[in-house]
Amino acid sequence: MKKSHLEELSTIFENDGILHQQEDMIAYSYDASHIEKTPEAVVFATSTDQICKLMQFAYREDIPVTPRGQGSGLSGGSVPIEKGIVLVLDRMRKMLDFDPENRLITVEAGMTTSDIDPIVASADLFYPPDPGSVTFSTIGGNIAENAGGLRGLKYGVTKDYVKMLKVVLPKGDIVTIGSKCVKHVAGFNLEPIFVGSEGLLGIITEVTLALLPIPKHRESALVVFNTLNDAAQCVSDIIAYGVTPSTMEFMDKTTINAVQNFKDCNLPRDAEAVLLIETDGEKNSAIGEMKNIKKAAEKNSFRSFSLAGNTKERDLLFEGRRIALNALANVKPNLILEDATVVRSKLPDMVRGICEIATKYNLMVGIFGHAGDGNLHPTFLIDKNDTDEMKRTEKAVKELFRLAIDLEGTISGEHGIGLEKKPFLEDQIGSAGIQLLCDIKRTFDPKNLLNPGKMFDFPNSTSN
Amino acid sequence: MKKSHLEELSTIFENDGILHQQEDMIAYSYDASHIEKTPEAVVFATSTDQICKLMQFAYREDIPVTPRGQGSGLSGGSVPIEKGIVLVLDRMRKMLDFDPENRLITVEAGMTTSDIDPIVASADLFYPPDPGSVTFSTIGGNIAENAGGLRGLKYGVTKDYVKMLKVVLPKGDIVTIGSKCVKHVAGFNLEPIFVGSEGLLGIITEVTLALLPIPKHRESALVVFNTLNDAAQCVSDIIAYGVTPSTMEFMDKTTINAVQNFKDCNLPRDAEAVLLIETDGEKNSAIGEMKNIKKAAEKNSFRSFSLAGNTKERDLLFEGRRIALNALANVKPNLILEDATVVRSKLPDMVRGICEIATKYNLMVGIFGHAGDGNLHPTFLIDKNDTDEMKRTEKAVKELFRLAIDLEGTISGEHGIGLEKKPFLEDQIGSAGIQLLCDIKRTFDPKNLLNPGKMFDFPNSTSN
Repeated sequence: MKKSHLEELSTIFENDGILHQQEDMIAYSYDASHIEKTPEAVVFATSTDQICKLMQFAYREDIPVTPRGQGSGLSGGSVPIEKGIVLVLDRMRKMLDFDPENRLITVEAGMTTSDIDPIVASADLFYPPDPGSVTFSTIGGNIAENAGGLRGLKYGVTKDYVKMLKVVLPKGDIVTIGSKCVKHVAGFNLEPIFVGSEGLLGIITEVTLALLPIPKHRESALVVFNTLNDAAQCVSDIIAYGVTPSTMEFMDKTTINAVQNFKDCNLPRDAEAVLLIETDGEKNSAIGEMKNIKKAAEKNSFRSFSLAGNTKERDLLFEGRRIALNALANVKPNLILEDATVVRSKLPDMVRGICEIATKYNLMVGIFGHAGDGNLHPTFLIDKNDTDEMKRTEKAVKELFRLAIDLEGTISGEHGIGLEKKPFLEDQIGSAGIQLLCDIKRTFDPKNLLNPGKMFDFPNSTSN
Repeated sequence: MKKSHLEELSTIFENDGILHQQEDMIAYSYDASHIEKTPEAVVFATSTDQICKLMQFAYREDIPVTPRGQGSGLSGGSVPIEKGIVLVLDRMRKMLDFDPENRLITVEAGMTTSDIDPIVASADLFYPPDPGSVTFSTIGGNIAENAGGLRGLKYGVTKDYVKMLKVVLPKGDIVTIGSKCVKHVAGFNLEPIFVGSEGLLGIITEVTLALLPIPKHRESALVVFNTLNDAAQCVSDIIAYGVTPSTMEFMDKTTINAVQNFKDCNLPRDAEAVLLIETDGEKNSAIGEMKNIKKAAEKNSFRSFSLAGNTKERDLLFEGRRIALNALANVKPNLILEDATVVRSKLPDMVRGICEIATKYNLMVGIFGHAGDGNLHPTFLIDKNDTDEMKRTEKAVKELFRLAIDLEGTISGEHGIGLEKKPFLEDQIGSAGIQLLCDIKRTFDPKNLLNPGKMFDFPNSTSN
């Protein structure tokens, strides 16, 4: 990067807000995906005003800017693939306003998502979306990726809780969009377009989120099945009984055994699949829902149904699910984690299809995930040094995406497109869909400087 | 309209799908607002394909097109202010797919919204948004206006239920956006931008909506107050108790008396205000919530609290609320109905402010509306032939919008901007906000031919 550019950045961010030595760049060259690219400079914003100045500068000088929270994304969203500047937001972590009467909180975008609950718990409120990264990812990153999590079926995802956003647009304009009101129809509905925009349309600096009352009671159960199909069918049947569990997680035999090898969580090693289910709300209501869940399990030749008798038992159950990915990572040197998603009724087809693909390409696969909302995480367990296995994995992933699309599902339920799934987006949304995305990107960012190279190829982009 | 244009339209829509005689135009020149303009032709679509051809034709020939459902909008959204063609969608009313397993229904956009519930009730499901016009407005119109209704507090508004849309873009391209999946992050979140876009960005032809299980039990109560402030404060206190009623409607003394003059609904004529509250869910849970509501009422010197003992009593209570607008329309020759909205905690300030404005301009006002979500309907009762009163009303409305904005609220909670509130939108969202709307409109509709003249002034528009 030119000396004059670094000087201008130093003026905006002062000395402790900028890094540009080659060795410092490495930590900002990757996220939780498998892609790396080192930036030319890294800046640490502490105010919306600094970000406004940064974008005015970047636009004048034609320098790409890639926003970054904690770099925990799974699709390459914060990797500076076109080099330029990485803008880190995690120093902007202030709580700006807590408004319990209206069940709202306003925070800076760099706040860690799990830091919200301790603040709002004082008023018996909570923030429902809980992606796996909730204890380290930033709320701004969650919004940019429209993060999901374990409670999607009952409580929805990040986009369902975003009320207002302060955004710095690519050319440096600052806009506040949305409203604190439950109902607001003045102008186009713009805040949702920034949710899940993967940092391509603007830099989110402040957010107002909706909160819900903490449920008074929870019931948790582990249901064990002898066949994958019974477990998947049980999910559909539970919904058909009119029950909406707050959590309904699935783990297959490979995942169960990986977990048990990692830590004993009392999971049955010989079961083909388990469902980990939670209902919440008023005590009678949560208990009543759990009774219906047992009925659905009985319909699908379940092997056992055990209620967690106390918090300790409950925590142990959920720990098994929470450590699943780390446990699978211990089985083979590498893993490819996907998030292809279908509607619930197609879960049996999806699970069957994943197993067939794994068999066809002679790959080891662990399947776990959010069965309640059809969002599974098929995880191929591989060794990247095994070239032949890598080739087979690539083919298997392609076939997996095709399967999800054929089942009217989506290639990404919660991880985003970024770089990892960019080659497959057109299969999902068609060329007219890609055209629409390009048109919108051009409207906000005609020079394609904000997080360039992601999601789709922008015409006349410097992207190769 | 030129003969050759009419001939081309006749080719697309056949003889029974087009009107162009002057006398036929009148019925398509107005909606439920106070603005009229006659179109040059009216066409009745029966397929997405016809609409695609219409837009290709309109774009080639530079003819404005204004989409219309049942013309029940309250802000002028379907009035063809730039003349041209009115496109009526109410012949597209087919149910395309009911998918109870995934709690989804797909219908054509011209279906009347209340026609959805009888279809889905067979699987114990319902479609929650219930605008006042639910029995005659189309679901496409509801989506274009992001319609609200009585259940917003607990169940949200139209945008919270739109999963997928088939849309004909202004130049004639057909796109399908969104996903049936609970989680979907492949590409920008585009469907919400069409929800509430008031027919400016595309023509919605098919919609997939999320459904919820019908609550097993309801509790309904009428709470009577001696002061407006007590009623408004009670709303905030109910929420503070962690209760989320499914309905919490407010009526002031003027409205109560107008209703009682219209039909005896057992409302107390001498009360300053009443709240009509409903809780729903599992029986114990709904009853428990209602107990907390009574506690909040006691805190605010309520005069009486009466539970509906049976369906008949409940229906009578709700009838009083449902006929409120018609009842107020009987008090004076005309009325100006507004939907300025604030966050719940600001309701006491808002109610006080409305009364002060009415006093200042010597106007009669009835206040009713959805107190639970801060969405009141202050309704000025006037005689349009009284020039002085009209002038005072205009000033009062302007001051009302200012009050809503000053209280961090919105000039429109559920009726939309259209023509009625267009002069006030910049006060709400600022010039940067207007610029963003123009940029997005230009992206979709560079010639400004789809519903031109609405919401904001488009630069180089033919709008005067």
